[in-house]
Amino acid sequence: MESFSVRLARATANRGPLCVGLDPSPATLSSWGLADSVEGLRIFSQRCVEAASETVACIKPQVAFFERFGSQGFAVLEATIRTARQAGLLVIADAKRSDISTTAAAYGAAWLRETAPLAADAMTVTPYLGLQALSPIFDEAREAGAGVFVVVSSSNPEGRALQQAQMGELSVEVALYGEIGDLNNAARDPFIGAVLGATRAFDHAPVANMAGPLLIPGFGAQGATAQDVGERFRGLKNTLVVAASRAWTDAGPEVKQLIDRASALQASLRTALL
Amino acid sequence: MESFSVRLARATANRGPLCVGLDPSPATLSSWGLADSVEGLRIFSQRCVEAASETVACIKPQVAFFERFGSQGFAVLEATIRTARQAGLLVIADAKRSDISTTAAAYGAAWLRETAPLAADAMTVTPYLGLQALSPIFDEAREAGAGVFVVVSSSNPEGRALQQAQMGELSVEVALYGEIGDLNNAARDPFIGAVLGATRAFDHAPVANMAGPLLIPGFGAQGATAQDVGERFRGLKNTLVVAASRAWTDAGPEVKQLIDRASALQASLRTALL
Repeated sequence: MESFSVRLARATANRGPLCVGLDPSPATLSSWGLADSVEGLRIFSQRCVEAASETVACIKPQVAFFERFGSQGFAVLEATIRTARQAGLLVIADAKRSDISTTAAAYGAAWLRETAPLAADAMTVTPYLGLQALSPIFDEAREAGAGVFVVVSSSNPEGRALQQAQMGELSVEVALYGEIGDLNNAARDPFIGAVLGATRAFDHAPVANMAGPLLIPGFGAQGATAQDVGERFRGLKNTLVVAASRAWTDAGPEVKQLIDRASALQASLRTALL
Repeated sequence: MESFSVRLARATANRGPLCVGLDPSPATLSSWGLADSVEGLRIFSQRCVEAASETVACIKPQVAFFERFGSQGFAVLEATIRTARQAGLLVIADAKRSDISTTAAAYGAAWLRETAPLAADAMTVTPYLGLQALSPIFDEAREAGAGVFVVVSSSNPEGRALQQAQMGELSVEVALYGEIGDLNNAARDPFIGAVLGATRAFDHAPVANMAGPLLIPGFGAQGATAQDVGERFRGLKNTLVVAASRAWTDAGPEVKQLIDRASALQASLRTALL
């Protein structure tokens, strides 16, 4: 199978950088007239996948909102991921997992191994335990032709102090971009990407050297406009994946409304990134 | 209901500081003669809970090993948590979750809200997004009388550089102990604890000021002896919870073997901490 980075680059070149987020929070379900229940989750997810399959390269289900309903919520998530992939969408499981050793390996197997019920194309992870501690997840990804997005520069202000703490001569985030780049170079495939908030100012060089794709939250409801995204990310050769959740599902609850909104967001991003 | 910190302090005073970890990895299931399957998970978990209910204050299921089996693995985890709590055990869900805003709230609801299928007494979280970003999880915990353990000083060496990076005049970990202490003081209940690896040297003052309980991994299979734990943690007034996973389940697969091993580990820790 082609690697995740190749599939992602082609899919976003064809359809554009927009990645729609599935965030079935109580408030969003309610705004669609749906119950905050397993059945509500199911209807929400079906409509999202149907609309997404017409308009975007990839979707990003937010695992927490399914996890609220335990095993039954996870059954809906399994069906959602499977249906989306069958429809040709790439699925990034926004799980923000993190652990060490055999536990890290288990998270890799849970989300990236092709035979697992929750198998997605890529997952998000957080690096507080050190990037090298996540290597069992990277191993699983390489084996499966899947991808991993490491949260490096988050969109929220509360993480800024830790992410910019000094680790020797480098900030934590610049050091992480460097470490990811080393792993991508060694693999001769940029299978590890980074999460970099649309609201963040950053130096292009370390991000470009990292080589992997960028998953960019913070567009729309979280405050950055398409123009902001264009100004900050234009010119980077990394594959760009710009996530919109509420800014997309606010258009709902009809599939037609979701398709129209996704097309509009897609167009605004394409223009801004030209 | 009494708060988690009160329940934990009483239970560990009665039974001792040992917290047994349920880590049904492929290797551990195989060493018990069990299949690496949902049925294997179920048998493993039942025996662990039966043995634990005789000997310890709390258990720590490692969520990743259940998550490998998707919704079916989560159904086993739900039953495991429920049975354990009915048997009077405190359950710390080792989930190492992390997110912001409504997503963080969803993780809190998933693991700490009494009506959720996976409701536990406490959960573990990681702070890369900033401690304040986790406040929706803390709010949920306070509301539910539950606890949260923040991974601050992990047992693995790969996390050291980031955890000791300089954030102004303080290291990341010392700053985190301070922030947790502020939240515990404001709540007048030390409902937020920290994960502090048994293999780590540390200054007592910031940890003591944090006031919350300590969850201590790294005992046994990961390298620290009861004596090491005694030397490093003796004298602290924080409630101590010392986790052992493989060092415990290696005794299996019979319930009697697990009870005997837990009793021996418990005794060695009590002596070392005197």
